[in-house]
Amino acid sequence: MIVALAGGVGGAKLASGLAAVLPPDELLIVVNTGDDFEHFGLHISPDLDTVMYTLAGRANSELGWGLAGETWHCMEALEQVGAETWFRLGDRDLGTHLARTHRLRRGESLSAVTSALCRSYGVAARIAPMSDGDVRTFVHTREGELAFQDYFVRRRCEPQVTAIEYRDAERAAPAGAFARALDSADLEAVIICPSNPLLSIGPMLALPGIRDRLASLRVPRIAVSPIIRGEAVKGPAAKILRELGKEASPMSVAQIYGNAINAMLVDDDDAQQIGQLGEMGIVATHAPTLMKSAADRERVARTVLQFAQSLRERRVTV
Amino acid sequence: MIVALAGGVGGAKLASGLAAVLPPDELLIVVNTGDDFEHFGLHISPDLDTVMYTLAGRANSELGWGLAGETWHCMEALEQVGAETWFRLGDRDLGTHLARTHRLRRGESLSAVTSALCRSYGVAARIAPMSDGDVRTFVHTREGELAFQDYFVRRRCEPQVTAIEYRDAERAAPAGAFARALDSADLEAVIICPSNPLLSIGPMLALPGIRDRLASLRVPRIAVSPIIRGEAVKGPAAKILRELGKEASPMSVAQIYGNAINAMLVDDDDAQQIGQLGEMGIVATHAPTLMKSAADRERVARTVLQFAQSLRERRVTV
Repeated sequence: MIVALAGGVGGAKLASGLAAVLPPDELLIVVNTGDDFEHFGLHISPDLDTVMYTLAGRANSELGWGLAGETWHCMEALEQVGAETWFRLGDRDLGTHLARTHRLRRGESLSAVTSALCRSYGVAARIAPMSDGDVRTFVHTREGELAFQDYFVRRRCEPQVTAIEYRDAERAAPAGAFARALDSADLEAVIICPSNPLLSIGPMLALPGIRDRLASLRVPRIAVSPIIRGEAVKGPAAKILRELGKEASPMSVAQIYGNAINAMLVDDDDAQQIGQLGEMGIVATHAPTLMKSAADRERVARTVLQFAQSLRERRVTV
Repeated sequence: MIVALAGGVGGAKLASGLAAVLPPDELLIVVNTGDDFEHFGLHISPDLDTVMYTLAGRANSELGWGLAGETWHCMEALEQVGAETWFRLGDRDLGTHLARTHRLRRGESLSAVTSALCRSYGVAARIAPMSDGDVRTFVHTREGELAFQDYFVRRRCEPQVTAIEYRDAERAAPAGAFARALDSADLEAVIICPSNPLLSIGPMLALPGIRDRLASLRVPRIAVSPIIRGEAVKGPAAKILRELGKEASPMSVAQIYGNAINAMLVDDDDAQQIGQLGEMGIVATHAPTLMKSAADRERVARTVLQFAQSLRERRVTV
């Protein structure tokens, strides 16, 4: 069984590649919920939705979030009445937010709601939130502390970051499916998808016991670098790394993950970093990792699964 | 100053006629909130919305509720995920529900939120909820007790009614604007619009002190009959009256209102009831009251205002 940790768009792409090449019962996709927030009383889970919509083949590829073929009539009405419109709520997307919020208020866990929504959207792969508790990512910037969506959407990642905080992470238990998968004798590898290491993966590593549990696993834990040639494919990862005094490189990503990983897949263009990664004790390899098409996603998924397989065969991870 | 009490579609029509012929500061439209309910965590005020949309010229005349040019993409998404879809939430209408809910949760009163929404929709007339408290109409039927929307929308008014209950009405204070208007020295008349007497007007009359206050007023209190030739123009008023053992007639409506009214405008087709109404002490007159066009609404509005004026001149209400 493979556990894949994923955040937003990049993570969803590799997760969908893995879902395309693995049987549903051999994959668990664990998704960041540090971006979750309440807006107009609705519980919004941006990363869970991105992963679900991507796996359902319903993601809006032009926008990079939300549903394909979306309409914006509710937003027009909110504009009409002078309500906040910085966070765009698509009419179809609202159905997900309303249904999720309603079920959560009825007492269902976010894990249960996620499973139900995924079934409704015809997603066979198992998707779990990282936790059923509330973890809220806050971005400390030179302009003060910002809740994640304030930083990411309202301020468009412009303020200079000084620190990232995963508020209440120490009190949030990993979701049952996540914890069980890491403890499972069937676990063959953990794959950290090419998501923002600080904003998307950081919240998961901040959950109680997760870093230690990953570090103690005797299976490959492979990070796919979200940084290619000094830049993030999408999003503010490179900008934030530089603002925090780090270089935007696979090396920096590996340092953030520390001993939670023992292997890394970097892009061909970063092949020269493999030696340095080796000095850190990380087995690295390179391949084309840019995912533009569905075929790309499956190819990268197969590459990382083969890498995991070769690591297991050589027992380099023991 | 004129106070008009209104519920759904029929009430909204006369209210819009009154708004068309009176200056904004000479009219207060008080709207039923006994139909209000929570759905998907949203505070929905069907009658306030019907009146607001009608006065804004934005009402969906085909449906008889909601906004013109509405789309239903959120509902399609709710259907996709197997959520409840018996109450239709239009995409544009959702903007109103989200904005209202958000402002209520922030601590604003329903009166304040209503005023703000009306300004946004370009409605000059003053519209107030009957109360800022929660009154919830329950319909007791041969199939058990049903919350109003369960009876009205989900069960399409099919179950046979045995009683109507205005739950918590005794604890809900009339909204400030409503109470002040009834106490105002400038009050010239109260007009009860042709709304369902039991479902739309009944909740207002059940508020503490309202019946007595109306009965003690020395101004015309005129009900416009919602029943024409034994039938309601729209909705279940006639059916409910018969189920409760009353005939569907202006007489029955007058009996329900009791001494809250002292005058009545009935349709030409019910002119023969005027004598009986007189025996009850009610001054009645007749005119064409069916409102199909905007011109009809203004004509009925002028008719009822002239009726009020003539009653004041003759001091028949003192």
